[in-house]
Amino acid sequence: MGDPAGIGPEVVVKALARVRRGSFVLIGSREVFESEQRRQGVSVLSGNEIVDPVGRLGRFSMGKVQKPCGEAAYACLEKGVELLNQRRISGLVTAPVSKEALRQAGFRWPGQTEFLAEGLGSSSFAMLAWTPKFKAVFVTIHLPLSQVGRHITPELVAEKTVLLDRFLRLEGKQKPGIAVMALNPHADEFSQGEEDRIRAGIRLAGRAGVQAEGPIPADAAVASPTAFDGFVAMYHDQAMIPAKLLGRDAGVNVTLGLGRVRTSPLHGVAFDIAGQGRASEASTLAAIRLARRLAGRQTS
Amino acid sequence: MGDPAGIGPEVVVKALARVRRGSFVLIGSREVFESEQRRQGVSVLSGNEIVDPVGRLGRFSMGKVQKPCGEAAYACLEKGVELLNQRRISGLVTAPVSKEALRQAGFRWPGQTEFLAEGLGSSSFAMLAWTPKFKAVFVTIHLPLSQVGRHITPELVAEKTVLLDRFLRLEGKQKPGIAVMALNPHADEFSQGEEDRIRAGIRLAGRAGVQAEGPIPADAAVASPTAFDGFVAMYHDQAMIPAKLLGRDAGVNVTLGLGRVRTSPLHGVAFDIAGQGRASEASTLAAIRLARRLAGRQTS
Repeated sequence: MGDPAGIGPEVVVKALARVRRGSFVLIGSREVFESEQRRQGVSVLSGNEIVDPVGRLGRFSMGKVQKPCGEAAYACLEKGVELLNQRRISGLVTAPVSKEALRQAGFRWPGQTEFLAEGLGSSSFAMLAWTPKFKAVFVTIHLPLSQVGRHITPELVAEKTVLLDRFLRLEGKQKPGIAVMALNPHADEFSQGEEDRIRAGIRLAGRAGVQAEGPIPADAAVASPTAFDGFVAMYHDQAMIPAKLLGRDAGVNVTLGLGRVRTSPLHGVAFDIAGQGRASEASTLAAIRLARRLAGRQTS
Repeated sequence: MGDPAGIGPEVVVKALARVRRGSFVLIGSREVFESEQRRQGVSVLSGNEIVDPVGRLGRFSMGKVQKPCGEAAYACLEKGVELLNQRRISGLVTAPVSKEALRQAGFRWPGQTEFLAEGLGSSSFAMLAWTPKFKAVFVTIHLPLSQVGRHITPELVAEKTVLLDRFLRLEGKQKPGIAVMALNPHADEFSQGEEDRIRAGIRLAGRAGVQAEGPIPADAAVASPTAFDGFVAMYHDQAMIPAKLLGRDAGVNVTLGLGRVRTSPLHGVAFDIAGQGRASEASTLAAIRLARRLAGRQTS
């Protein structure tokens, strides 16, 4: 469900109305889902199971950070981990949350991904920005830009590159070709040593059988996105700018390394348009479809 | 001409073969241009004037950094500034140079732009990545990424934003709408103070009559490139990634604030494919066409 004051329930109900086959477990407030379904004039809940860890939520305002909404989103995440660990579900699609509301509710992780990793017992994981034409794993994500350089180590670059390789193989590429982006403009010309560490990371990944090239200046790497099966980006915008441009509004956030399928839309709670019926379900729909495809391969 | 060992002469001759109207002053080695014309089997030199500040260049290898080639490129730049100052030409299109070869030839500026600015007496200038759909000015360009943050000041942001506004008006926009990108992911969430300085810069630009919004997270800003007439990027890749994706191989580098028109292709010497006849002239052709259009407006 995500944060009920955001666009989560809206895009989930809209997306379910467009998914033809299969049944789903909806984790969230039954009253929120039902009222959203009424508002949209659709009937998507009947064929699917609702697991409601929220109970009575009470009144709340759309588009605002509120502690009860954070508590509701938190409860849904906990239930999601529980169902994944019980193998009652074969994959989890999370809807957008407000980190501020989660924090008010006592959530103490940097983000959903770290919470899920801990709950699923994974110590090596990565975020992937997925679009049909452009897939990029992040070496760092939620850091001040000026601190990115010092966080780049050969081990971290190798870890994320290997996780990307494994994912691309799961997606069906026999020998994935991976481009590793440089941190600095033109790669080495202005390097403070980061490019040498990236190079060392590529060598480490190579020893694990991964075919990766780099460091390639990021603007050159994306100039021919189809030349590579996947990209390793050093920081948030380096992957998110091409993902938003190439994936339009249908990019998906995939967590690698959890040992379970987890996807989510590549956008936030969008409090500015929450409750207006104007949110696009494209990203959530893509997240659901990708999760189903990956779950089918992982279990086969 | 640019560096004769790079793709400069090739793309200039190819582009001239595709320009229908007008005549040009070619600044470069007559023997290099003539041999390139023979190789391509075209005849583009006869209608245009050649100014040759190089003279006898001697033998050189394609695709390599060489001091005589750097000297030739340097001489062409000097001649370009001279002709601009004499108003003998109404705009300058520069072909790619090798900075290393230029340095071997005694060139002591960080790049061509700084050299031109000094030669033309400009102390306030900016680089613009121009494509038909996406135009972005750089607040910083050639810096290690980890040093970008400390270089961002309100005055610098305002200066570049104002230069962009003036350019967009010259291009015909009556009231340009400008998006100023944030430095950090999600703008303020991970800011080390840069976003407040960007905000102060936007206020300064506002007092100069510029309509600019921001700081907007860069991935959100580019997600709808047509919502703004121009963008202010904080660093190299933030502008170059969207420019390469949206402009394909036909992006143009424009220098603002020189008081004269100066454009160049948005790519380098490409030593790896120099002399093979495989280089695309699209970017040079776009640079020539844009220079001519801007020169027509500036003098009218």
